[in-house]
Amino acid sequence: MDDLVQRFLAGDRRALARIISRVENETAEGREYLRQLFPHSGKTHILGITGGAGSGKSTLTGALAGEYRKRGMTVGIVAVDPSSPFTKGAILGDRIRMQDLALDPGVYVRSMAGRGALGGLAPAIADVVAVMDAFGFDVVIIETIGAGQDEVEIAGTAMTTILVNNPGTGDDIQALKAGIIEIADILVVNKADHPGADVLVSQLQALLTLSPAGSRRPPILKTIATKGEGMDKLADAVAAHHEYLESSGVLASHREEDARHQVLAIARQILLERIRQSTSEEALAGLVHRVASRELDPHSAAEELASGVSH
Amino acid sequence: MDDLVQRFLAGDRRALARIISRVENETAEGREYLRQLFPHSGKTHILGITGGAGSGKSTLTGALAGEYRKRGMTVGIVAVDPSSPFTKGAILGDRIRMQDLALDPGVYVRSMAGRGALGGLAPAIADVVAVMDAFGFDVVIIETIGAGQDEVEIAGTAMTTILVNNPGTGDDIQALKAGIIEIADILVVNKADHPGADVLVSQLQALLTLSPAGSRRPPILKTIATKGEGMDKLADAVAAHHEYLESSGVLASHREEDARHQVLAIARQILLERIRQSTSEEALAGLVHRVASRELDPHSAAEELASGVSH
Repeated sequence: MDDLVQRFLAGDRRALARIISRVENETAEGREYLRQLFPHSGKTHILGITGGAGSGKSTLTGALAGEYRKRGMTVGIVAVDPSSPFTKGAILGDRIRMQDLALDPGVYVRSMAGRGALGGLAPAIADVVAVMDAFGFDVVIIETIGAGQDEVEIAGTAMTTILVNNPGTGDDIQALKAGIIEIADILVVNKADHPGADVLVSQLQALLTLSPAGSRRPPILKTIATKGEGMDKLADAVAAHHEYLESSGVLASHREEDARHQVLAIARQILLERIRQSTSEEALAGLVHRVASRELDPHSAAEELASGVSH
Repeated sequence: MDDLVQRFLAGDRRALARIISRVENETAEGREYLRQLFPHSGKTHILGITGGAGSGKSTLTGALAGEYRKRGMTVGIVAVDPSSPFTKGAILGDRIRMQDLALDPGVYVRSMAGRGALGGLAPAIADVVAVMDAFGFDVVIIETIGAGQDEVEIAGTAMTTILVNNPGTGDDIQALKAGIIEIADILVVNKADHPGADVLVSQLQALLTLSPAGSRRPPILKTIATKGEGMDKLADAVAAHHEYLESSGVLASHREEDARHQVLAIARQILLERIRQSTSEEALAGLVHRVASRELDPHSAAEELASGVSH
């Protein structure tokens, strides 16, 4: 076995950082590391923390990690920045506040940038989470922004999803959340010392009455992440949700669903790679030009492209 | 040729609605309609209007459509609701305000819901836009929410992207937008009668100074969409951007890029469909279970799955 893997399994953080970089870059070498380490994963409780811009979810992630440290637990954090297809992760104001944590050997923070439209970020996140899991962190937190396709996929990897809301934003935000709310296992009203916090709690309670009958009703917790307030109760609520997942058997089916999703997503990437390899750039450009000039529709062009792919 | 296609080409809105439904559902019949109609497309100016929840972009979309109607132009609107993987488009508060427009025969509004994680919404949106384009609308507006993967893809279809900002939200929203800002051709500060509007304009100007040298600097316009204020200038700015796209040759390369993106995205869907057809549910479930139980890593499982796909 590779020396790096041995150091990783012995708890060497530099080995962790190197392996994550290789896995994240989706190199063949990275995949080989993942293959070797994957059997060591499957023990961590994976949390997702999500919410709109300005909800304070980065601060909350840091504060919750601090609470886990008080409890003697180790924490891996994957901070996902979806704005980065363009800026390569330039703007991470809140994350700077996490730097304190980065000095704690019981916490490991990794920022991940967005990908181009076809690659997709979710498979790479799941791989990095699996590596942190194999490293032995008690908890891995995936922190991500906003609404959309990516968030849906990330919610699939997290076992417990915390949706962070903050008072004082428009009605539409509440409307948007009615969609996201269904992926939330725990609702947090952060900045609970701001005006409107109690109104927001009531609004969220009202929204929850719209949930399908028989579904688990997520608890609503008030926090002030900047002061660390409410973190004990939040960590307790996470533990209670984990207990529920295990005792109800939901955790086992979650693992199957997440595995299915990941396998299909990666297979799709492999097939796309085959398209690129089986078609010359000239042939692709020719097809594309016929579409751009409206001579051929995109579905017929895609059929032609896909028909040239063999295994 | 099909009677429905003849009626469509003669301007029958009911034929338009039926064909869009078939195309949106991605049936073989829908693809055949698209194939026949695609050569009629390529004349419309496609706008994207995007912004965070609560930015008032739906109201702005309606107001801008009203401005185009004043100018004697016809407008197709595709309103995308990304919260809908869960709720199937239940919450569209603002869109109700568009109902007035729906009575105008020069305007056609279509709401589209999000898709499951693997299907992807973007190819279907591009298809619906192509149908509206073929129908002969002078302008097609794609209205969509927030940040993320979907938005990036949609920005690819739109020729002119309008980013709607509103004053009085947190600093982080501005930070987020620094990522999205690079896809914006026109920046709008809506709710310009709210406090903080001028501050927001200054902040956006400051952000724009970070754009790469030599790139076109998007104009910043103030609007009050609820009162229709600023719509004349916004429509003028859109026309100016279109003029720039044509004279600079950017429009032609945009068409090629968008076609390439669409063709690859659809080819990927076709290949995924092949996986599903070439693998029995039992075989897939077996592979997935080996991953869930950490016996096999997801990349190796995906390789195995993809290796069974032939054409």
